[in-house]
Parts: sequence; structure tokens; C-alpha cells
Amino acid sequence: MQARSEETRTHILEAALRRFASVGYNAASVEDICTAAGVSKGAFYHHFPSKQALFLALLNDWLATLDAGFEAARKANVPETLLAFTEMLPAIFAAADGRLTMFLEFWLQASRDEAVWQASIAPYERYQQFFTALVEQGQAEGSLRADVEASSAARAIVGLAVGLLLQALLNPQANWERTAQESMEILLNGLMHKRTTT
Amino acid sequence: MQARSEETRTHILEAALRRFASVGYNAASVEDICTAAGVSKGAFYHHFPSKQALFLALLNDWLATLDAGFEAARKANVPETLLAFTEMLPAIFAAADGRLTMFLEFWLQASRDEAVWQASIAPYERYQQFFTALVEQGQAEGSLRADVEASSAARAIVGLAVGLLLQALLNPQANWERTAQESMEILLNGLMHKRTTT
Repeated sequence: MQARSEETRTHILEAALRRFASVGYNAASVEDICTAAGVSKGAFYHHFPSKQALFLALLNDWLATLDAGFEAARKANVPETLLAFTEMLPAIFAAADGRLTMFLEFWLQASRDEAVWQASIAPYERYQQFFTALVEQGQAEGSLRADVEASSAARAIVGLAVGLLLQALLNPQANWERTAQESMEILLNGLMHKRTTT
Repeated sequence: MQARSEETRTHILEAALRRFASVGYNAASVEDICTAAGVSKGAFYHHFPSKQALFLALLNDWLATLDAGFEAARKANVPETLLAFTEMLPAIFAAADGRLTMFLEFWLQASRDEAVWQASIAPYERYQQFFTALVEQGQAEGSLRADVEASSAARAIVGLAVGLLLQALLNPQANWERTAQESMEILLNGLMHKRTTT
């Protein structure tokens, strides 16, 4: 029974991902998702109290994959760790494919709805804190310049990743893997050198 | 009659901006916009063939303001010009307030609809080309490192700006003016120094 229930949950998540990607978060109804997953509404609500809860489960699954990748990619010092993360970007881009419009739509909704905002700000703030701690570590070990706010550097790293994902959504033809690696390398380079006055 | 017509157009644009910001691009109907602007549907369609055309007019007005700002901020060399652009970011953020969700929504639509995509990719590509040319100029004058692809650096600049705008949308409490300036300074710093192998 346990395995069967887990399987049902996975079917619902996979069907929801496809529906959200094809028609959008708002247009995809719980009924549609149930039909696509081949489950009853009762089974759906047994696993997820709402469509929003289902979305957050998808988001958290994706973030958990990222977290595991980040932990596995830790190196001897922070610049090497950041370069290793950058090498993960193609896989992140590939995994985001199809989910990206869904995240955007949810983000939009979060900007208008306090309850959704509260639910979605937590994972986002987690990355902000993760990269702030990483930059602080680099500053402590002397590999990153000390004259920048670690939290600003973290927002730059997260901002660049988010901005490149968005650009990739609008213009999928460009070589985003290479662009992402070069962009992050420029940012890292800027974090390793003392400020230059022009 | 000419001035009156211009005034009607402005009323429609202002009403549309408010409606798009409050209920979203998709939910705002032409009828709503006409009511809010106090104009007839006939007057609306005299000025704009469609809601999409209206949106593109709003987008182009905003981009024209940016362009004028960028031209006025040109300095003796490219790093100084980029720093001057960075000082414009608070004003860009302020002007984007209320428009941002609308742009996101349109962006989402563009990712699903070929016709909308064609209409919205042009201004976006314009900034990509603008910053590519600026980075090439910096490389030619020797103020920016020559070992990066100018087009990648341009995507990094545009990506960072877009990513920070998005983060500001999700978390308006943070000090985005300072963050934006520090982030761009890090990126610029990374463009001014030769690559370091770690």
C-alpha cells in the first residue's frame, strides 16, 4: 500500500508538471491534473491539500536536487566551489526546462498574493543565505575580496542566475551553457580582485 | 483636434498601465481599460489595433526613456559609462514599479505564443546589441579585458539587471538600490581584470 501511494503521488507530480508547462499554473485545474494522472480527486486531495501545495512540492523537489548538487560540488576553497557550481548550470538549465514558465507564473502570483508570497519567499531566501554564507567563507579564507557586502554579492549571484534563466526562456536559441559559464566567471573574477577606481 | 487625440492616447496608456498593474495583462480587458480611461471602444481602436499593440507601446515608451538616459550618461571611457549607467539603476527600478509584473506576464505569454515572442524579442535583442557594442568598445580602448566574448558579457549585464529587478519584485523590502550598484560594480570589476586561475 505504501509503495502504491508513493507511486500515485509521483504520477500526480509528473502530470502536474506537464499541465503547468503546457497551459500554465492558473489555467491548469485540479480536475485536469487528475485526468492526466489517471487518479480520482479523492486520491489527489489525500496527497495535496491544494494546487498551491502541489506546486510547492514540485518547487521543493527541484530545490532539493539543486541542494544535493551544491553539496556534492564543494571544493577546497570558495572560488573553486563557485566555479564548480557554474559547471552545474547546464544541468540546472536543462532541469528547469518546462518548469521555468511555471515558476514565473507562480512568482507573478506571489507578487500579488500575500499568502503565496509567504510560501514562496522561504526557498528563495534560503539561496540568498546559502550564497551569503559562502561569500563570507571566501572572505574569511582570503580568497574573495573583503570590501563588498557578502549579502550584495549573494544577490548578484542569485540575480545573475535568475536573469540568465529568464533570458534563456525568451531566447532559447543562444548558447546559454557557455554564456552562463562566462557570465559567472566574470562575476567571480570581480569578487576576487580589489575594487579598481576608474 | 491633434492635441485632443494625443491626450486621448495618453489617457488610454495611463489607464492601461494601472489596470495591467492591478489585475494583470491577461485579466485586463479592452473594455475595462476604456472605462478607466473614459474613452469609447471606437477611440481605443483608433489608437491601438489590439491590447497587444497597446502593451508594446507602453514597453517602447519605457525603453525610449531608458535609451535617452543611457545616451545622456555616456562618459570618457567604457568603465565610467557602465558605472554611470549603474547610478541610473534606482531610477530604472522606480520607473519599473508597477510595470514589472506586466512585463513578466507578457514575457510568459511570449514564451508560449510565437507572434507575441516575435514582437517582444526585438527590444530585448536591442539591449543585447547595445551592451555587446559597448563591451567591444571597452575592449578596443583597452579598459576592459579582451579574453571574454563581448556578447557573453552583454548577456551577463542584461541578465544581472533583469535578475535583480525580479528579486526586487519578490522581496521589495531589501535595499535594492545599494545591492544593484554593488552587484554591477562587482561585474564591472570582473570585466576590468584579467582572468585568474584558481
